[in-house]
Amino acid sequence: MTIRRFSEKKLTGEVLRRIRGTKNKRLKRVMTSFITHMHHFVRDVKPTQEEWFQGIQFLTETGRLERDEFILMSDTLGVSMLVDALNYKANAGSTESTVLGPFHRPNAPRYPLGANISKNRKDGMPCRVTGTVRGLNGKPVPGAMLDVWEAGADGFYDMQKGKAMNLRGVFKADAKGRFHFRCVRPEFYPVPHDGPVGRMLRATGRHPMRPPHLHFWITAKGYKPLITHLFVKGGRYLDSDAVFGVKPDLIVDFKKVKGATGKDSVATAHYDFVLMRK
Amino acid sequence: MTIRRFSEKKLTGEVLRRIRGTKNKRLKRVMTSFITHMHHFVRDVKPTQEEWFQGIQFLTETGRLERDEFILMSDTLGVSMLVDALNYKANAGSTESTVLGPFHRPNAPRYPLGANISKNRKDGMPCRVTGTVRGLNGKPVPGAMLDVWEAGADGFYDMQKGKAMNLRGVFKADAKGRFHFRCVRPEFYPVPHDGPVGRMLRATGRHPMRPPHLHFWITAKGYKPLITHLFVKGGRYLDSDAVFGVKPDLIVDFKKVKGATGKDSVATAHYDFVLMRK
Repeated sequence: MTIRRFSEKKLTGEVLRRIRGTKNKRLKRVMTSFITHMHHFVRDVKPTQEEWFQGIQFLTETGRLERDEFILMSDTLGVSMLVDALNYKANAGSTESTVLGPFHRPNAPRYPLGANISKNRKDGMPCRVTGTVRGLNGKPVPGAMLDVWEAGADGFYDMQKGKAMNLRGVFKADAKGRFHFRCVRPEFYPVPHDGPVGRMLRATGRHPMRPPHLHFWITAKGYKPLITHLFVKGGRYLDSDAVFGVKPDLIVDFKKVKGATGKDSVATAHYDFVLMRK
Repeated sequence: MTIRRFSEKKLTGEVLRRIRGTKNKRLKRVMTSFITHMHHFVRDVKPTQEEWFQGIQFLTETGRLERDEFILMSDTLGVSMLVDALNYKANAGSTESTVLGPFHRPNAPRYPLGANISKNRKDGMPCRVTGTVRGLNGKPVPGAMLDVWEAGADGFYDMQKGKAMNLRGVFKADAKGRFHFRCVRPEFYPVPHDGPVGRMLRATGRHPMRPPHLHFWITAKGYKPLITHLFVKGGRYLDSDAVFGVKPDLIVDFKKVKGATGKDSVATAHYDFVLMRK
């Protein structure tokens, strides 16, 4: 038995040789690329043992948090938007996608059109959102499902405060592809920044803020699912979103109008979504 | 305010632009390289949203384990040995280094020369290890400290079974740089493989085994610390160590001899370590 010595240069080749037997071809491709790029990174920065250990501790800490800190890490390093861009190439005329983020919840309550997803008076400024869901040919997509969610004016999503569902819901577009619902006008807020991601942002001179936005996940039979936001025109941080999610076509006017009583302000917004065929 | 749209191609540049303000120059260098290589990897494999989420879940799970699963991940992907190779370039004549691994414990008991680090009869075959610590000039390094640790014949380190310290200890070489202690003959064993790393190894057609070895961390004033193993000549898995730690010069004979009673076998090994000056 000959025992070979793997020089720094030959080590990567040996690691790749060991995974030759990977049965799943896609996994083999992903692991080969990951090992190669990770080794390139290590060779490039030549970490000391102490730096390597700091990196290990950073990853461990990121995984120990109860919330989805690795999604946040991916979001704030632009990886999520890159995956989005590689997967969802909007055709001319179809609505652009953006990040899912860590705050979607499956099984949000199903509401009739016109319902209010805001359950507490203090959630923020009342808002009415109307729009349509259409195909690229301009024809309505009847019965498209719209899963919507947002943070309150305090900057928190429901799940950051407890288990109760609030400021989220699922609507079904009508036979003409139209939808309308009530919510609160989105406000800017910081992504959770009391953990490793927050430390990383501070250490690299970045703020944790996201511009005001309303989340949409729109699905319809025969169409590609669309995960996107509507951003509030004129909102803060539109030009420096901590997760790189802003696209100009997704910025819409949330007009302030007088409420029914003439006293409270109400915002209104309208958007016509255009889905791509599968 | 102009809101720019970041195409897939321009996204990496925008992320790097955002960290321009990083005050710590070293951190800026490391983050720039990490973001660049991570984006290259993502562009190369073009993960679907589902694959991306699988990756996020894999990282989260790796961090949730109580043991140091990220060290194990680094070890089994050859990253630890790469960091080792980049940091500790052995001169001709000096002893080679290898991985630290996840089982070192600070504050192991300090023993007089000749003591036995094995506290239980069932730990394995009794073994005597002798040797010297010298400099590259051949002169002894008096008072060099040797931190040694090993798994028992059952394949487990003490910390995998409870809090009690066993099969580890710290020795001080004498005025002539000589040391000797008792332990058990190392046996091959699997790295912990009931977690994400184990799944990764199975999925890529790899075994989790490490060849028999005894850990050393040798320090002495004026010399570079040496983290290394002695591997048992003829041991299994020397040519396929799951963490890529084997170097031919670290393989030594653990000779079996009859014990004092003429009944039990005892192993003996000898090694002369050569340290590099700082």
